[in-house]
Amino acid sequence: MTEHQLGELQLSTWRAFITAHATLVDVIDRELTEAECIPLHWYDVLIELFEAPEHRLRLHELARKVVLSRSGLTRLVDRLETAGFLQRQADTTDRRGSFAVITEEGIAALRKAWPVYAQGISRYFAQHLNDDEARLVAELFNRMLRSHLL
Amino acid sequence: MTEHQLGELQLSTWRAFITAHATLVDVIDRELTEAECIPLHWYDVLIELFEAPEHRLRLHELARKVVLSRSGLTRLVDRLETAGFLQRQADTTDRRGSFAVITEEGIAALRKAWPVYAQGISRYFAQHLNDDEARLVAELFNRMLRSHLL
Repeated sequence: MTEHQLGELQLSTWRAFITAHATLVDVIDRELTEAECIPLHWYDVLIELFEAPEHRLRLHELARKVVLSRSGLTRLVDRLETAGFLQRQADTTDRRGSFAVITEEGIAALRKAWPVYAQGISRYFAQHLNDDEARLVAELFNRMLRSHLL
Repeated sequence: MTEHQLGELQLSTWRAFITAHATLVDVIDRELTEAECIPLHWYDVLIELFEAPEHRLRLHELARKVVLSRSGLTRLVDRLETAGFLQRQADTTDRRGSFAVITEEGIAALRKAWPVYAQGISRYFAQHLNDDEARLVAELFNRMLRSHLL
């Protein structure tokens, strides 16, 4: 087949992939809201800061790492700063740049949200995969991520 | 394990899943932009209207169907209307409700974008899966989607 003549099978697999993503993110987000936790796309940003050296990242580094809110990240960083979960910090080595640093409140928000998030991953995603399936799915997605362009 | 003690394997599979989603959507979106086509989340809304009876859906039906922009959909519908790709239509059976209907321009925008989108799905997603893997991945995600809560 030429490259843009996708088969039915491939197309329905793609649809299942993007539909599952939207649906799982939605249901986990709803449970976070019900438990009065931060939403998933806030979690996504804060966990990257938490895991970074000195709990901080340059904004362009952050943009590369987050996986739910790449568009609109600047606005999201503003909202997280207003909420007290991160602070901007001038980059003394680059006057145009700045860091985002997670605050204690941000770390507390992550800690509160994690059990709810983890339960969602377990209940809606992981429990539907046996270990072999989980390994294969991880391998397939990592294969896509490693491929030439990504 | 208790429900929120996820194993390493399950957690890394989840990470691969959400990272692959973000990365593939990003790269396909970039190629659509380069080809002067509509972005993927516009495509996502317009294709649902195109495939619906009479090319139209109530806004709450649309919100259930789209898979990329569930939050912020009202604003997105406004932008698509301003761009001339859809029109709102009063619902004569429900004075509070309204339909979104795809326009001829919207259909043309879909037709222009599809080859670029399809090539992206093929190149970054489908070509990394053989038929057995594609069938399994579709089955796994559909299993999650069918499960009790979703």
